[in-house]
Amino acid sequence: MRFNIIKEMGNSRGRVGVIETPHGNIETPAFIVVGTKATVKALTVEQVKDLGAQALLANTYHLYLQPGDDLIKKAGYIQKFSNWDIPSFTDSGGFQAFSLGIALNKKVGKVSDKIEKMDMVDIAGSETSGDLVKIDEEGITFKSIIDGSSHRFTPERSIEIQHNIGADIIFAFDECTSPHASYEYQREAMNRTHRWAKRSLEYHKSKEASKKQALFGIVQGGRHKDLREESARTIGMMDFDGFGIGGSFDKQDIYSAVGWVNDILPKGKPRHLLGIGEPADLFGGIENGIDTFDCVTPTRIARNGSLYTRDGKINITNSKYSDDFEKIDSECGCYTCSHYTRAYISHLFRAKEMLAATLSSIHNLYFIVNLVKEIRQSMLEGKFDEFKNSFLKRYTHLT
Amino acid sequence: MRFNIIKEMGNSRGRVGVIETPHGNIETPAFIVVGTKATVKALTVEQVKDLGAQALLANTYHLYLQPGDDLIKKAGYIQKFSNWDIPSFTDSGGFQAFSLGIALNKKVGKVSDKIEKMDMVDIAGSETSGDLVKIDEEGITFKSIIDGSSHRFTPERSIEIQHNIGADIIFAFDECTSPHASYEYQREAMNRTHRWAKRSLEYHKSKEASKKQALFGIVQGGRHKDLREESARTIGMMDFDGFGIGGSFDKQDIYSAVGWVNDILPKGKPRHLLGIGEPADLFGGIENGIDTFDCVTPTRIARNGSLYTRDGKINITNSKYSDDFEKIDSECGCYTCSHYTRAYISHLFRAKEMLAATLSSIHNLYFIVNLVKEIRQSMLEGKFDEFKNSFLKRYTHLT
Repeated sequence: MRFNIIKEMGNSRGRVGVIETPHGNIETPAFIVVGTKATVKALTVEQVKDLGAQALLANTYHLYLQPGDDLIKKAGYIQKFSNWDIPSFTDSGGFQAFSLGIALNKKVGKVSDKIEKMDMVDIAGSETSGDLVKIDEEGITFKSIIDGSSHRFTPERSIEIQHNIGADIIFAFDECTSPHASYEYQREAMNRTHRWAKRSLEYHKSKEASKKQALFGIVQGGRHKDLREESARTIGMMDFDGFGIGGSFDKQDIYSAVGWVNDILPKGKPRHLLGIGEPADLFGGIENGIDTFDCVTPTRIARNGSLYTRDGKINITNSKYSDDFEKIDSECGCYTCSHYTRAYISHLFRAKEMLAATLSSIHNLYFIVNLVKEIRQSMLEGKFDEFKNSFLKRYTHLT
Repeated sequence: MRFNIIKEMGNSRGRVGVIETPHGNIETPAFIVVGTKATVKALTVEQVKDLGAQALLANTYHLYLQPGDDLIKKAGYIQKFSNWDIPSFTDSGGFQAFSLGIALNKKVGKVSDKIEKMDMVDIAGSETSGDLVKIDEEGITFKSIIDGSSHRFTPERSIEIQHNIGADIIFAFDECTSPHASYEYQREAMNRTHRWAKRSLEYHKSKEASKKQALFGIVQGGRHKDLREESARTIGMMDFDGFGIGGSFDKQDIYSAVGWVNDILPKGKPRHLLGIGEPADLFGGIENGIDTFDCVTPTRIARNGSLYTRDGKINITNSKYSDDFEKIDSECGCYTCSHYTRAYISHLFRAKEMLAATLSSIHNLYFIVNLVKEIRQSMLEGKFDEFKNSFLKRYTHLT
């Protein structure tokens, strides 16, 4: 993997670049589309590529449990197993092992995509996670969300699984804490994450896979400036190919934490903001030095009928759209908006047709993926602030 | 609409032709893909066209109830509403009004695609349909499967609804009886169907829509030779653009009934066999003079993991396929078989991913649509019997 910065913005931390991977280039800033279980829900890979996606991210936790990383390796890695012939990422599995274990304990839900990557804001963190997630110095023990069976991730095991899956960019094993955890716990978890980062890196470097897969270290530290800076210094000094910024944030804390971290991380390596992807967050992340994002939000809300427009989100299941023969978004050039009306998509939701999820996901992903492309273009033209202000003014007008 | 017969088989009732419609040609024999609620479940129209489909059939009953035929007309008919820019059919709505009303009465199921066109063999027919479906000389009164509300179809209303939907080929309103109904009831229902056919035709001819939409009359008469022949004579003499052969059959009765009917129907008009589409039925129907078929079976069984291969059907959810890295069917050229393995599709079903339904539906529809195209080619080359024997010998070997 190589990363080239093409342009740095003068008045912010933002930069424009290109990540080169064995399966193609990613022009950054870029939104990485999430395909949790080796499929973007309701879409073929061709549909994902057609809407402009440059790369995909799968979840290690889910693929480890089902169908198993050994099987994916045997199939010829994620590229052959799931026809993903573009750049790909896997996360470390840590986030889901914590959050889904806790969700299971709290009886939040059964096996459901609703909790594939849930909001951790209301979860007290590993301090109170009960007996379904146990953390020790070596790793974590958790129960499967599928059948309740017991499993264990260590930094070495996480990297081994990610080698078996074979994505171009993989992440060090980390502990993602709740934003409501105490300062003391955040520090303790951060220090553990640093030790796990070192072990992840050592294991990775000792294997052949490190020649074709890039490993990103993850910066933690919650909302605390001193912890974030310490984490950025510690992780930033390690020989990672790039960095992830992790953590469950209260909205207002994101940009400041990202800024503190990116002022310290080495400039020449790419930075990925994990699990964030609403329009306002994209602008905020990019001007604070983020190169790539991933987030399930565009597809998840699409399946519930919540669709992006330049004038804010609309819920297509609202009865007023049932005889609305306009496009979802009059300015959108996606496949869905080129061929279907709000009335038709509204009908599909009412009729509980799967095509509702397909057409809505195509639209929302196109909207977000291409919004980031437009942001990139505005940066190249030196018009970032102008574009940001005009976009957000209109987008937030109605919401 | 025009129908040209290109070739007649010497030793059977089979023929090769072309139906010309305002939205394109259908090379016959052809399998018409069913999109019940103005969408082929889990597929975009582009995916349906890419797999080789020449035409689509929507269900009048479902579209009348949701989103309503007025809305579809307002959208610019089915072509614009659902992006169906190829030839299309609608059925008359009679079949579903009977069978789904009875299903509702028997509490067979809730609103579910499982009963969108259910097998009527186990249903006693309108004789015992209780108070949810009432037949009189003018039409039928039935309760909605969506909310139990009361509705009424007459021949005139069925045609009006089909005019509003705007498919290229529409069907006269008929009564579809159970194969277990008595001879006396079959005769009574057949005679009513004939009177309804006349009324359907008169209403149709009195409207502008008849200039662009073709109306097919439906032959009924159950499994009785005298009734089928009488129905074919009566319907065949009316000024329809083509014919449908209706009825719920016990398997062994289909081909004989089709043969009796097609010996009487005028040769120069197309004949559609309603709701039939398993491989063996296609050969049997075609050699008995059928030009077009429609059936939900390929997509319905696909969503349950039952997939066609040249060696018979397999169920991909069987555990033995979870590490099988072959195509579904080694000889298949469909999108699914070109890009994915049995192991991947098996994973998608286990993970309850919507892409399972999409990839499986593409495969099964490709299999059936292209099987009919191969049959057509074999007829053009004078090799129908050879192809039929070799195909069925292998296909039925394992089932």
